[in-house]
Amino acid sequence: MRCIENIRELTEVLKNNKKSSGIGFVPTMGYLHEGHLSLVKKAREENDLVVMSIYVNPTQFGPGEDFDRYPRDLKRDRALAEEAGVDILFLPRTEEIYAGTTSVTLHVTEGVDVMCGKRRPGHFDGVVTILTKLFHIVQPDSVYMGLKDAQQVAVVERLVNDYFFPVTIVRVPTMRESDGLAKSSRNVYLSPKEREEAPVLQHSLQLARKAIQEGADSSEEVMLLVRETIESGTSGIIDYIEVLSYPGLCPVEEWDGEIIVALAVQYERARLIDNMIITVSKEDKHV
Amino acid sequence: MRCIENIRELTEVLKNNKKSSGIGFVPTMGYLHEGHLSLVKKAREENDLVVMSIYVNPTQFGPGEDFDRYPRDLKRDRALAEEAGVDILFLPRTEEIYAGTTSVTLHVTEGVDVMCGKRRPGHFDGVVTILTKLFHIVQPDSVYMGLKDAQQVAVVERLVNDYFFPVTIVRVPTMRESDGLAKSSRNVYLSPKEREEAPVLQHSLQLARKAIQEGADSSEEVMLLVRETIESGTSGIIDYIEVLSYPGLCPVEEWDGEIIVALAVQYERARLIDNMIITVSKEDKHV
Repeated sequence: MRCIENIRELTEVLKNNKKSSGIGFVPTMGYLHEGHLSLVKKAREENDLVVMSIYVNPTQFGPGEDFDRYPRDLKRDRALAEEAGVDILFLPRTEEIYAGTTSVTLHVTEGVDVMCGKRRPGHFDGVVTILTKLFHIVQPDSVYMGLKDAQQVAVVERLVNDYFFPVTIVRVPTMRESDGLAKSSRNVYLSPKEREEAPVLQHSLQLARKAIQEGADSSEEVMLLVRETIESGTSGIIDYIEVLSYPGLCPVEEWDGEIIVALAVQYERARLIDNMIITVSKEDKHV
Repeated sequence: MRCIENIRELTEVLKNNKKSSGIGFVPTMGYLHEGHLSLVKKAREENDLVVMSIYVNPTQFGPGEDFDRYPRDLKRDRALAEEAGVDILFLPRTEEIYAGTTSVTLHVTEGVDVMCGKRRPGHFDGVVTILTKLFHIVQPDSVYMGLKDAQQVAVVERLVNDYFFPVTIVRVPTMRESDGLAKSSRNVYLSPKEREEAPVLQHSLQLARKAIQEGADSSEEVMLLVRETIESGTSGIIDYIEVLSYPGLCPVEEWDGEIIVALAVQYERARLIDNMIITVSKEDKHV
């Protein structure tokens, strides 16, 4: 594995690999866990060359957010990335990637005022800004993103679609514990009782899928089902439950196409999120 | 020459030409004149494959501007493009290039409130929006842009630089009549007397260059020289004279790097623009 900080050096190395049948790209903020490594695994299966970036992007943190305290462990990340099969580890420096004054800004106008985005105004502007830069530098064929953060995947898919970026966004399913709980570095903060209850989040989403596929009348009905399931199964406090089109992230007008059911639940010392994307066809309804 | 309207068809054709040593791209709004053809000529010299786009981009026209009345003559354009050596003429359709709702907007924050941009709020947002799309679709190695519209070139150079687009912007000098007047389709609207006087615009810029190279004290001094030269040589009314850094388009702090002197003069029935980019090095000063 080669570690590269300099943009020009990276583009030179990539140019010499251009004949390769594909560049797979895994953008991260580091502090790698199993979720990231599952993205690398998928990228490794589908491409000749796998590039990972590690960069804690300042522009996607709002005032008062934890940019300074965001965990960093480059030595460990490097070992994990190499072991997982990354060919090139790109470590951009802020002085270069945000050099000088920015003369053009990117602003996400749709799909941001829902789910976790409600609490993070401007967050996705920072995400699309850094990814636009990284996509141009790395010029990947495919970009691997985890569905644990389904809102981010949706925003990036729409960015790519609106502006015809020549890349394919590959959605990688959320990794789960054997009892269905979405893997998260925050799960360790759950009390034993909370941990025991937490699979109800995933369970409530499975019930939502069943209800939608069997022809639930409305989003409200589905949200109520999820709410009641969670409230009766755990002490966690519901932050939100939403049913939206995907990747549009708009209120669902009719059960057709992709639908996301997303939720966040606050526990004593951890906030957990989970979601499920359900493909519905008008014809499926009421089967 | 192949004419292509469909984006997917274009990307297929371009993919099959990927081995070529270079794709040169000339984005236009059509109604081609000698200026456009000089861009094609330059692109032809430097690339295996020359792609021209013709698209009257609605998002760069403000309310009350002449989008509907913008001249169009595709049949003539097609003949001229083919004769000039264009390989692929891309004719995007609005339904495809601006399909659906846009979820991410681009906004130019620097270099817009000067020169002609002052009169056209939002104009450059439209320019960078369409060019981002076109650059991603065509994936050119080099993009050919005319310095007649130096502000547009500056904005696009900064877009490319800020976001690391893997393209080179090639600045193509303004074409001129034998007496120095910048070629423009609007020159025909000049009266015989105005036409005779109009070379004073270019002449005033040459005097400005000489003054800067010989160590003029300030931008104000240069602007005054240009103003006096124009006012004493023609009946046209000065709209603006500006001396700015290039491509930053900021007030000049010191005579170093690239400087643009730009002007616009209003005649009875035509508004003419011209500019000169001057490279100054601190060491050159007062030679």
